Amino acid sequence: MSEEKKNNEEMTDDMASRSALENARDSGVSTAWDRYEQQKPQCNFGTEGICCRICNMGPCRIIPGRQEEGVCGADAATIVARNFVRMIVGGSSAHSDHGRGVAQTFLEAAKGEAPGYEIKNEEKLKEVAETFDVETEDRDINEIAIEVGEKAVASFGSQEGELEFISRAPEKRKDIWRRNGVVPRGIDIENVEAMHRTTMGVDQDYKNILKQGTKAALADGWGGSMIATELQDILFGTPGQPEKGGKKDAVKFDANLGVLDENMVNLVVHGHEPLISEMIAIAAQEEEIQEYAREKGAEGINISGICCTANELLQRHGIPVAGNFLQQELAISTGAVDMMMVDVQCIMQSLERMLPDYHTKLVTTTEKAKMPMAEHIEFDESQPLESARELLKAAIDNFPKREGVNIPEESEKALAGFSHEFIKYMLGGSYRSSYWPLNSNIKDGKIRGVAGVVGCNNAAMPLDKMHVPMVEELIANNVLVVQTGCAAIASAKAGLMQPETALEKAGDGLAEVCEAVGIPPVLHAGACVDNSRILNALAEMVNVGQENSRLNIGDDVSELPVAGAAPEWMSEKAIAIGHYFVTSGVYTVFGGDFPTVGSEVFTEYLFDEIEDIYGATWDVAETPSEMAGKMIDHIDKKREELGIGEGAERVLFDMDMRREMQE
Amino acid sequence: MSEEKKNNEEMTDDMASRSALENARDSGVSTAWDRYEQQKPQCNFGTEGICCRICNMGPCRIIPGRQEEGVCGADAATIVARNFVRMIVGGSSAHSDHGRGVAQTFLEAAKGEAPGYEIKNEEKLKEVAETFDVETEDRDINEIAIEVGEKAVASFGSQEGELEFISRAPEKRKDIWRRNGVVPRGIDIENVEAMHRTTMGVDQDYKNILKQGTKAALADGWGGSMIATELQDILFGTPGQPEKGGKKDAVKFDANLGVLDENMVNLVVHGHEPLISEMIAIAAQEEEIQEYAREKGAEGINISGICCTANELLQRHGIPVAGNFLQQELAISTGAVDMMMVDVQCIMQSLERMLPDYHTKLVTTTEKAKMPMAEHIEFDESQPLESARELLKAAIDNFPKREGVNIPEESEKALAGFSHEFIKYMLGGSYRSSYWPLNSNIKDGKIRGVAGVVGCNNAAMPLDKMHVPMVEELIANNVLVVQTGCAAIASAKAGLMQPETALEKAGDGLAEVCEAVGIPPVLHAGACVDNSRILNALAEMVNVGQENSRLNIGDDVSELPVAGAAPEWMSEKAIAIGHYFVTSGVYTVFGGDFPTVGSEVFTEYLFDEIEDIYGATWDVAETPSEMAGKMIDHIDKKREELGIGEGAERVLFDMDMRREMQE
Repeated sequence: MSEEKKNNEEMTDDMASRSALENARDSGVSTAWDRYEQQKPQCNFGTEGICCRICNMGPCRIIPGRQEEGVCGADAATIVARNFVRMIVGGSSAHSDHGRGVAQTFLEAAKGEAPGYEIKNEEKLKEVAETFDVETEDRDINEIAIEVGEKAVASFGSQEGELEFISRAPEKRKDIWRRNGVVPRGIDIENVEAMHRTTMGVDQDYKNILKQGTKAALADGWGGSMIATELQDILFGTPGQPEKGGKKDAVKFDANLGVLDENMVNLVVHGHEPLISEMIAIAAQEEEIQEYAREKGAEGINISGICCTANELLQRHGIPVAGNFLQQELAISTGAVDMMMVDVQCIMQSLERMLPDYHTKLVTTTEKAKMPMAEHIEFDESQPLESARELLKAAIDNFPKREGVNIPEESEKALAGFSHEFIKYMLGGSYRSSYWPLNSNIKDGKIRGVAGVVGCNNAAMPLDKMHVPMVEELIANNVLVVQTGCAAIASAKAGLMQPETALEKAGDGLAEVCEAVGIPPVLHAGACVDNSRILNALAEMVNVGQENSRLNIGDDVSELPVAGAAPEWMSEKAIAIGHYFVTSGVYTVFGGDFPTVGSEVFTEYLFDEIEDIYGATWDVAETPSEMAGKMIDHIDKKREELGIGEGAERVLFDMDMRREMQE
Repeated sequence: MSEEKKNNEEMTDDMASRSALENARDSGVSTAWDRYEQQKPQCNFGTEGICCRICNMGPCRIIPGRQEEGVCGADAATIVARNFVRMIVGGSSAHSDHGRGVAQTFLEAAKGEAPGYEIKNEEKLKEVAETFDVETEDRDINEIAIEVGEKAVASFGSQEGELEFISRAPEKRKDIWRRNGVVPRGIDIENVEAMHRTTMGVDQDYKNILKQGTKAALADGWGGSMIATELQDILFGTPGQPEKGGKKDAVKFDANLGVLDENMVNLVVHGHEPLISEMIAIAAQEEEIQEYAREKGAEGINISGICCTANELLQRHGIPVAGNFLQQELAISTGAVDMMMVDVQCIMQSLERMLPDYHTKLVTTTEKAKMPMAEHIEFDESQPLESARELLKAAIDNFPKREGVNIPEESEKALAGFSHEFIKYMLGGSYRSSYWPLNSNIKDGKIRGVAGVVGCNNAAMPLDKMHVPMVEELIANNVLVVQTGCAAIASAKAGLMQPETALEKAGDGLAEVCEAVGIPPVLHAGACVDNSRILNALAEMVNVGQENSRLNIGDDVSELPVAGAAPEWMSEKAIAIGHYFVTSGVYTVFGGDFPTVGSEVFTEYLFDEIEDIYGATWDVAETPSEMAGKMIDHIDKKREELGIGEGAERVLFDMDMRREMQE
């Protein structure tokens, strides 16, 4: 293993992770950070997007001034555009294939063919039915659901027309998309056509290549991801909204490795799709299962999550999250994880190499994602609860095999459940549920604007060290922050999602509003597919202003004082998300390396020129403060354009301030 | 530019290309070969498939013994499998998107909404209707066509069930596919799911990753490509078969740069889709157009082709082919090309960089493929003939702008049109049209077996220098050769597709059969999508034996004495084609670098272990003789297994023999 290990202090400020890392290293376990060091120096051609492996005449690479073209004559702009669009396709396909699985299960549930799954949220079903142009009046719920399910499944294969959820976008935005010919006809078709257009010798005009990439990205945000979110909400409940009757309320949860319990069977669910883990959550409450755990010497069974499967469970059930992406190995290294059950996406193959050293049972559950050394227990969707019980029992059976256990103490309390419906309710109350208070507070300057901070962790940088300081800086400057994915987990672990501690860090205006409403200044909006909630929220912010001009803070998404960021992005999914946000009108800043910088022409196009088309651009920033600053500047620019006053003077975060805050 | 230019002699034995290259170099034009030298040394990680750029924690690369895993823990097998499957997806998406375009135009034509396009081949329409389970009796042709068109379009978006053309495969093959769960549900879905499964942290079991790749590949061969071929045949005529009545006959054409005519307007069509070029071919015959050419000082207008658009036109109309993939730059360098009209795929971006030095007008014609410096004249499918006239006139207008013209003399005569229907007719005559004579001649040993030799050119190797000698060696050993794509053009240029000269090079048995039937020993079966004709032919060879056990040469494709090869492959499409052949039961050998060798485990799986599943494997060979030898050995092994006697002793081609033959 490499000599150049970083100090734990350099690797994260997250104390739970620091102590887990220390243990892992003492036991000789290699982590993603170690492997990152081992891979140094990373290939610059790949990093900058100017390595082309699209045909077998290469690999080719661009060296400015020396070799400006690949064998076929493709130049830097073409190569970078193709690689970038293929990243969009990877991400869009991932989210969409997730959405497809949900739509299929939804349809089966509606037909009564998937016992265990049911329509829990009739109100939302009717809303979605409206979008899908499905008649709801005087119809049986299951009848409506069947038709919605069929239309949802069909939208993956659709070959013409417009994706249904596109209709939810503001009129001005739809005009932009239609004028530029980027409205997706269906979900799969746009990804396949993008793959075609990026093969050797097809599209060689970077603008035209990106145009197809835009269709694939919009097919993710307003297609696959939105279908996943909306139908999951109908099947499992909308976060913050009780099933039937009951009080709408935020969901409390605990975050960080400390949620693992030495005396309980720890089953960690990891991945992205809640179809399986939802059943685990239900079955785990059964007395028979708890009793079985006690028989094996445990006090009970403790479900926790990693990555977006965690986000799905915590936002609906308050199930604790053990960590975000870079903590998956650390969880196992505690010796306390009796089973890690994985579904799809962001699962490190290194997990299976830890198996000889830990008692953890690593289980893959879906046909789509297997690992040679993991045990595969295929989840049977025709009898989901029984499948869930089988998995739970296997976890319990593994409890007595524990050897050493060393669980970090730290975890933080946090609130979640901020679906766009729940935000609406919290702002406006139950019978005047609306975004108007948000628009109004933005207009009068108490809230400067809204930032979506999303995305992954990345072993190329310290864990959460971009996320946390920039979110702190945003709220200090009265920017309300909405989060999903591993970015959301980062803030939860840092205590930024509990009103008590977080509001102290918020600017006066933001703190005042949040205190009055009873929300933290950093809102957990769900998993990565739930970035579609943010799209819905943005559309709602525009709509409120269309209905009442006094509340207008922009006729289009691109006019709103909002910005997006993915400070520690790693997955292709982040590029797909970034691009659907930009082309939906949201200025979006990424941290770390950006995979187009090898072509100035293409990067200039993304970072500047496409503003003329979509009213927004991509951007990058190196430090948390630079990132927060760029977002705040953008928000202030939009405020100025709207004539609603600049934001207050910017609170700059220097090192002294940080140190003070930490004391 | 690099100093290390190769001698023209090293670069090809094709004399037309040698002299064109000489001219090009004298004029300081850079060609693909020059850029290949410039790119040296190529990156080994990329070449071997062990560079991973699938997430932003990398790029990662495997160095055996030093860094066996990427940052996420993915090992060589996982990385190579993901890259390989993404190549399949690129190729499958390209062919399928082509097929989709054809299906859409077909449907419009059936509805009478695409004037200029019409149902030309009613017999084939009815055959396809049967496969699609469309009632044909007592129905109007357009009614049938509409239903076929709708079903064809739907198969791209289909989300469940089995692709219709799968039904054409032999029963034993379908059993294998069904047992292994690789029957494609639809075309787009399998490509999108493959993209999902190859994103970071999803499928990490190379066998499972490849399994999804197999679905995507079969969705190409038995889906997108077959739809393209079959519907094109219905719209434009099946090669070798006259429209209505008339004599079925092979199509004569000329091949090589010498087909360009100094005194005519030369319009070269290049790319893959015949939808546009078919209309060009029709409109070019109009007296008004010819007259317009004469007005501008030309003797008329001369259409020729490059790559697969050429193959499409030559197999149906005998329109000459100016060259294969690596000759596209050479064609322009003659100074005689007044317009090069490109559609999609295999178009070098270098073409546009030649524009300042040549009068050639480079025109892109489809929304899917633009080039910044080319002129874009979007083909209007609602008035195709008018669009074609516009393009022709633009070519003619450019004729007077010629400067120096230097056209190589060489071209060869050749026969084409060997669709599987026409092979059937040639073998059996018009009223007993059948594959039985083929099976019978294979059984009695006159024909040793059948080889499909397909694929591209590749600047990493000399032009056609793998193709030609290996095809010569195959026919000398009584192996009937069926070809498509740029491989077919290579043989045409070498005179291997005219019976007179080629039969001298064939073994006695093969020569006897070919002479009796009146076909060359090397059959031109069309464009790259027409590899689906070879699938149909293979199924037919099995079927004949099912109907009459005396003619049985295998109950499944994998039992037939056949083999496939792509000696000079370059495109991702070749990988998709190779993989659908292998998983359809055909032993397939590739030349050049193979993009999996960085993982012994995965390569072993492809080259050996999957025989247990599919009855066939991938293989590679370095020299033409090694490749021919491996194919012949495989054919002999299959003959032995069938108990129909080994082939005759193998004729080995050493350098002396080659020299002798060339004298």
